[in-house]
Amino acid sequence: MSDEAGAQRTKVQHIADELKAAIERGDYEPGDRLPGENALAAQYGVASLTARRALKILRTEGLVESRKGAGARVLSFQPIRRRGIPRLAREQWGSGRSIWSTDDVAPDVDQIAVLVDTTPPPHISNVLDLAPGEVACVRSRRYVVDGRPVMLAASYMPQALVAGSPITQADTGPGGLYARLADLGHAPVRFREEIRVRLPSTDEATRLSIPTERAVIKLARTAFDAAGRAVEVNEMTLDSAAYVLDYEFDA
Amino acid sequence: MSDEAGAQRTKVQHIADELKAAIERGDYEPGDRLPGENALAAQYGVASLTARRALKILRTEGLVESRKGAGARVLSFQPIRRRGIPRLAREQWGSGRSIWSTDDVAPDVDQIAVLVDTTPPPHISNVLDLAPGEVACVRSRRYVVDGRPVMLAASYMPQALVAGSPITQADTGPGGLYARLADLGHAPVRFREEIRVRLPSTDEATRLSIPTERAVIKLARTAFDAAGRAVEVNEMTLDSAAYVLDYEFDA
Repeated sequence: MSDEAGAQRTKVQHIADELKAAIERGDYEPGDRLPGENALAAQYGVASLTARRALKILRTEGLVESRKGAGARVLSFQPIRRRGIPRLAREQWGSGRSIWSTDDVAPDVDQIAVLVDTTPPPHISNVLDLAPGEVACVRSRRYVVDGRPVMLAASYMPQALVAGSPITQADTGPGGLYARLADLGHAPVRFREEIRVRLPSTDEATRLSIPTERAVIKLARTAFDAAGRAVEVNEMTLDSAAYVLDYEFDA
Repeated sequence: MSDEAGAQRTKVQHIADELKAAIERGDYEPGDRLPGENALAAQYGVASLTARRALKILRTEGLVESRKGAGARVLSFQPIRRRGIPRLAREQWGSGRSIWSTDDVAPDVDQIAVLVDTTPPPHISNVLDLAPGEVACVRSRRYVVDGRPVMLAASYMPQALVAGSPITQADTGPGGLYARLADLGHAPVRFREEIRVRLPSTDEATRLSIPTERAVIKLARTAFDAAGRAVEVNEMTLDSAAYVLDYEFDA
């Protein structure tokens, strides 16, 4: 990076930092419009391209949305607090409740596809300990809050384990997938959640309606039954601007 | 976004997706060089600027590094697996072990600053339930692995709680901060970790030596003592390319 490009980068960041701080302080509230490119350019004595790039950072982070000619409007969307541990407690799904009921907001499923006899990607086959050529059942869903897509999820289970059960239907019934795994004698007793952050693929960005510059959270959950067998892997892709993940546990 | 810009964006993403898949498959191994801008431009029939933008996505995600004139080299850095729950178990710090010892890699601290009688930001004062004007002790650290910065951390504790203890020294002694809080009669018995993702501030990007386009993980841990009092808030800022967070728990 040339010195000039570096200096411009610094100005972009400086303006973005100040706008973010102003939003955090409440100087701009949800629904308010930020100053436009030209106003910011004049205020900071920079080119309007520099101001535009600063506003783009806020858009990437999901703090504002812009419509052509209408400037950047501060968004009111509150991140969803996802309490990782209580939501998966057996008393939740064991009693027919949805695992979403301990979260502040219960997303709706607006897309669902169930595929049987599917060959999963190698890293999934590996975790599920599938033999070469062994197939899986995949439940793919998209979750929305107030019409906004917030998460994609793909649950993989060994086909041999779930064949003919309601797990292969769109509606798994009260308590969902984990209650049905329990009916089959494979109740999850332990979960592992692994969290990574990366940029979305084209397909993920399109399905989540997010800019390709905004990171996604890849949350992979493995469910283990009492015999220690991995009975499900759920690969979730979360809009990083839509979530706060929360894990609370004893020392 | 104009249709033309949209089409170019799609090409950029397509090339980036293919390069990422090739790295995941092992077609390119750590240390290997990816094809250069011109080679990619010829291969995909696109402008070299389009190829450059695709390579920039891989740099942003920390998959490759580029030096001027030397092209993009696949990085060998393995993400650090941070096991959230066992690392904070009382048997860890209670026996004088560092909380890092259950992780695959133990980062070193290369920068440390301890400030006493500091006024914390309002959201920290709020969590620590400080009275107006009440001050805190702040321990700021930077962690590195093989010389690469991976995390910044700022621990806040009520000054009145820790005044005169080793917590106000650079070296807190065996078992660290939590063992010393135990000595003071405020052993943590419960932790909450909250995870958000956002773009770094200028200062965070500089201290972590990461591109400003790469997201950081903001991990805020609150430690509660037996009386339910919040005795520490640790605000951590993680290079998102350097970590896999791992939480394992019973159903």
